[in-house]
Amino acid sequence: MHIAYIGLGNMGAPMALNLHKAGHQVTAFDLSPDALRRAARYGLRTAASAADAARGADVVISMLPASAHVEALYLGPAGLLACLPAGTLVIDCSTIAAASSRRLAEAAAQHGIGCIDAPVSGGTGGAAAGTLTFMVGGSAGDLERARPVLQAMGQAIFHAGDAGAGQTAKICNNMLLGILMVGTSEALALGVANGLDPAVLSEIMRRSSGGNWTLEKYNPVPGVMENAPASRHYTGGFGTDLMLKDLGLAQDSAAAARAATPLGGLARNLYAAHSLAGHGALDFSSVIRLLQKPAP
Amino acid sequence: MHIAYIGLGNMGAPMALNLHKAGHQVTAFDLSPDALRRAARYGLRTAASAADAARGADVVISMLPASAHVEALYLGPAGLLACLPAGTLVIDCSTIAAASSRRLAEAAAQHGIGCIDAPVSGGTGGAAAGTLTFMVGGSAGDLERARPVLQAMGQAIFHAGDAGAGQTAKICNNMLLGILMVGTSEALALGVANGLDPAVLSEIMRRSSGGNWTLEKYNPVPGVMENAPASRHYTGGFGTDLMLKDLGLAQDSAAAARAATPLGGLARNLYAAHSLAGHGALDFSSVIRLLQKPAP
Amino acid sequence: MHIAYIGLGNMGAPMALNLHKAGHQVTAFDLSPDALRRAARYGLRTAASAADAARGADVVISMLPASAHVEALYLGPAGLLACLPAGTLVIDCSTIAAASSRRLAEAAAQHGIGCIDAPVSGGTGGAAAGTLTFMVGGSAGDLERARPVLQAMGQAIFHAGDAGAGQTAKICNNMLLGILMVGTSEALALGVANGLDPAVLSEIMRRSSGGNWTLEKYNPVPGVMENAPASRHYTGGFGTDLMLKDLGLAQDSAAAARAATPLGGLARNLYAAHSLAGHGALDFSSVIRLLQKPAP
Amino acid sequence: MHIAYIGLGNMGAPMALNLHKAGHQVTAFDLSPDALRRAARYGLRTAASAADAARGADVVISMLPASAHVEALYLGPAGLLACLPAGTLVIDCSTIAAASSRRLAEAAAQHGIGCIDAPVSGGTGGAAAGTLTFMVGGSAGDLERARPVLQAMGQAIFHAGDAGAGQTAKICNNMLLGILMVGTSEALALGVANGLDPAVLSEIMRRSSGGNWTLEKYNPVPGVMENAPASRHYTGGFGTDLMLKDLGLAQDSAAAARAATPLGGLARNLYAAHSLAGHGALDFSSVIRLLQKPAP
Repeated sequence: MHIAYIGLGNMGAPMALNLHKAGHQVTAFDLSPDALRRAARYGLRTAASAADAARGADVVISMLPASAHVEALYLGPAGLLACLPAGTLVIDCSTIAAASSRRLAEAAAQHGIGCIDAPVSGGTGGAAAGTLTFMVGGSAGDLERARPVLQAMGQAIFHAGDAGAGQTAKICNNMLLGILMVGTSEALALGVANGLDPAVLSEIMRRSSGGNWTLEKYNPVPGVMENAPASRHYTGGFGTDLMLKDLGLAQDSAAAARAATPLGGLARNLYAAHSLAGHGALDFSSVIRLLQKPAP
Repeated sequence: MHIAYIGLGNMGAPMALNLHKAGHQVTAFDLSPDALRRAARYGLRTAASAADAARGADVVISMLPASAHVEALYLGPAGLLACLPAGTLVIDCSTIAAASSRRLAEAAAQHGIGCIDAPVSGGTGGAAAGTLTFMVGGSAGDLERARPVLQAMGQAIFHAGDAGAGQTAKICNNMLLGILMVGTSEALALGVANGLDPAVLSEIMRRSSGGNWTLEKYNPVPGVMENAPASRHYTGGFGTDLMLKDLGLAQDSAAAARAATPLGGLARNLYAAHSLAGHGALDFSSVIRLLQKPAP
Repeated sequence: MHIAYIGLGNMGAPMALNLHKAGHQVTAFDLSPDALRRAARYGLRTAASAADAARGADVVISMLPASAHVEALYLGPAGLLACLPAGTLVIDCSTIAAASSRRLAEAAAQHGIGCIDAPVSGGTGGAAAGTLTFMVGGSAGDLERARPVLQAMGQAIFHAGDAGAGQTAKICNNMLLGILMVGTSEALALGVANGLDPAVLSEIMRRSSGGNWTLEKYNPVPGVMENAPASRHYTGGFGTDLMLKDLGLAQDSAAAARAATPLGGLARNLYAAHSLAGHGALDFSSVIRLLQKPAP
Repeated sequence: MHIAYIGLGNMGAPMALNLHKAGHQVTAFDLSPDALRRAARYGLRTAASAADAARGADVVISMLPASAHVEALYLGPAGLLACLPAGTLVIDCSTIAAASSRRLAEAAAQHGIGCIDAPVSGGTGGAAAGTLTFMVGGSAGDLERARPVLQAMGQAIFHAGDAGAGQTAKICNNMLLGILMVGTSEALALGVANGLDPAVLSEIMRRSSGGNWTLEKYNPVPGVMENAPASRHYTGGFGTDLMLKDLGLAQDSAAAARAATPLGGLARNLYAAHSLAGHGALDFSSVIRLLQKPAP
């Protein structure tokens, strides 16, 4: 298939490459000349503008930092929707506000263009390995059209509901993940302060009613889990500042819907304190340091 | 084996019965004549006092409401430790302060009596079915002596560490469980407020990084999980007031150890508000009601 | 002075009337015909559009619900800034995002129009009595030009800093007020649960290091303070949903500035739960009900 | 009057000295020989034991660290109550659990001994200057007998209610103080992160509805208030670890009374994190550092 790929950051570049490896004809664009050069070096065809990249494409995929970038790419008189032929399919993989996704889907529908929001989880590791999870909002028909493309980049594909539902599902999941990480860190720190071995306590809780994803895959105590970021000085996972951003989006969403999320709000503010203390670039499991004496 | 069983409440009675069914010679005692009569009706031998029940026993098991009851049973000049022969094994299954468990273990050691703290999780359902989980503090030798007895009452047995470690492990686990339940409720309520189907969102998070025990076994939204208390009007599970008690013990433990548990402390206070609103007797998954409009 | 007054809601109408009473020539506009009729009945001259109202005005005052309304009024090719003569002074009394206020101030400067953000505190009572507090962002010169106009509507005028600083000061103050109210309610509820008389405890804390504005002016326990909303069934003060909105703005501001405000975030989510329980229209001091058994 | 004074720590020693200066005949005792020697050097008569100090005293005053010390001093067969003549008055100024104070008062009543709990606020500065605040639990009659003695040590005397009420009032007040300090720090940090001058914002909030004791007397931002601990590197005030202890007592009290204090619980856990980070000995206003980037 002819695919235009817009946004070649840490996530976007390996995702585009996996499409290329799967045999799709990918034309890529990014505002950064460096990112474009790197993409070309890996064998991707590149274009001079988003509109150029999109010319002749069956599918346009975007992976951008925030709502404003996505709206600027697609909407308005100079946006892509105004120049794409009817029948094109837009797959926006950015993590943005659900309201923006809905705005995009409505505008696309007016041009006869299919559109899904398909934010991902799985991090840069999952992007490189092609094992991402997609949470999709949009019609079942558009999702079926997108499926072979998504399968080249990821493993699990969930249909969350109508336009915007992918964003909502992702933000709910990541808010919960932030809570799981802080809560698990608290339980482990409390046990250790009372003399327990963190590996023993982790194993007990993992197999009891405290069991959760962080105890399965991502233990925050150094040395307990060999492959977790905690065991390599909290490098190389999902950064504190990215978790802080997602927890902020969850609070925005709660404010818009007048929902109450006390633990989610507190997790956001604890991550903010952790970031202010200078740990924004560390993996998000490093939040356990907020609950421990600094190593001497 | 000859077993004295002290404390025949909602948990203790079915546990004693399972020992009896497994072929042990159980003599039971409770301060409540009603509880004693019920036990006799189920075929248990009963005694007129704890000391009477303990006469000739190889193992004494206790299942009592709080630290004060346990200390009154065993310690002091009139306590059981003063009259049990050296070599007896004490298994205290009560959920109490770790400091009380350590006090009991030290006093037992002075009498040459073995002692483990072995609080349980699994609720009255697990007690009846013999599928409880035991979290054990004490020596490996005492645990091995206790193992055949514990196996008659439960499925999983974890050795958490020295005396008191069973209590600490249980309280860490249950604090984390309280956080999981409130956090999962928040994520589901946020999704529903944004138009998502709670069953769809539950399934997505369960299989993603938000996965946790409550999404596996104990979904708080009515109708999502047929066998969960939420689907029977929040009856018949682990009560709000019991979770409130455990979260309070966790804060006690945090205060004693100068540990920081912000989400655990907040969960305790949210459960307190939920109980004050009149929901103390409902299952603890009903805390989601604190985050929802009341049904009309 | 000739004043155009845009926005005649619960706050705007009495503010405009006070300007009229002070001898200013006020022309008023609101999108709601009802609001316009009421204003005319009170003796205000009314106009058919904002632009009509602004014709010939020395000063334009706006009091609108949210950022979007303010930006729609002033900005864009059809906005007021495009038709006001240089030298006009714009006073925006709306409580909106500081970023919006800065955007407005920059656009005004390009047209040679003076501009301050001047959000108020004091509620509808203060608006009617002319005792509002203004927190002003903008240049000292523009504030001095505005001072006589502000003095006709309020008592205290604070210069918080440059454009947007009025909004920031208000949102910081109101976030703190939300915390004071919840915190004071907690302390009083804890004392009462331990048998203390709330009036006695209030007086002790008011004169000790717990002293704060809510204990001076706005006690949340019914009967302690005759004139407080608590003593008239929580009616007639500053509504729960308005406090919820301001606490949400504070979290927006914290997210934008990457600031950490754990108590502020928690207060927002507690007010959200209180509103969900059906108390959104009650005075914000009613949040103490979240911490008490319901009256029988 | 003949006064026995037990407990000559940082608070007790200057309090005893003020009684001496006011003309009372004070006999002092402390378990620490160093403390006794210091007291003697300042001119106080000292005794070899608490019982010796109490012989012939009209009034016994105690100022001890925790419930266990107070109970050990007065209760049991070897306690002071067993040897004091009926008619003596006991004034316990320690900050302890209200339940301990009630236990002491009941035991005293059985011996015909008057008893009040009279915990103080005002810190070591107030102790030295004789400007402490006393929050008193007990009968009005006992308080009147104690008044001249208390007046030699303090300025304000509040009658909170029956036995234990002094403790409850103090703990409610100090929980609220902890909330005020964290909340005010958050508001100031949020304002500064948005470009406001902390002195200007402090002044605005002090005179608005955010007004509270910390803005009057104890501003947490260095340089805003010359005499506050913040302006001398957070030294010399009320320590973080003392606030942490009081916030822990408040959570104990909330657990015992099944009260909900979400902000109080969160403040306790934030102070715990601040202490774990190594700031336990700094003044409690230093908690603002948890919300700021560290100085470079």
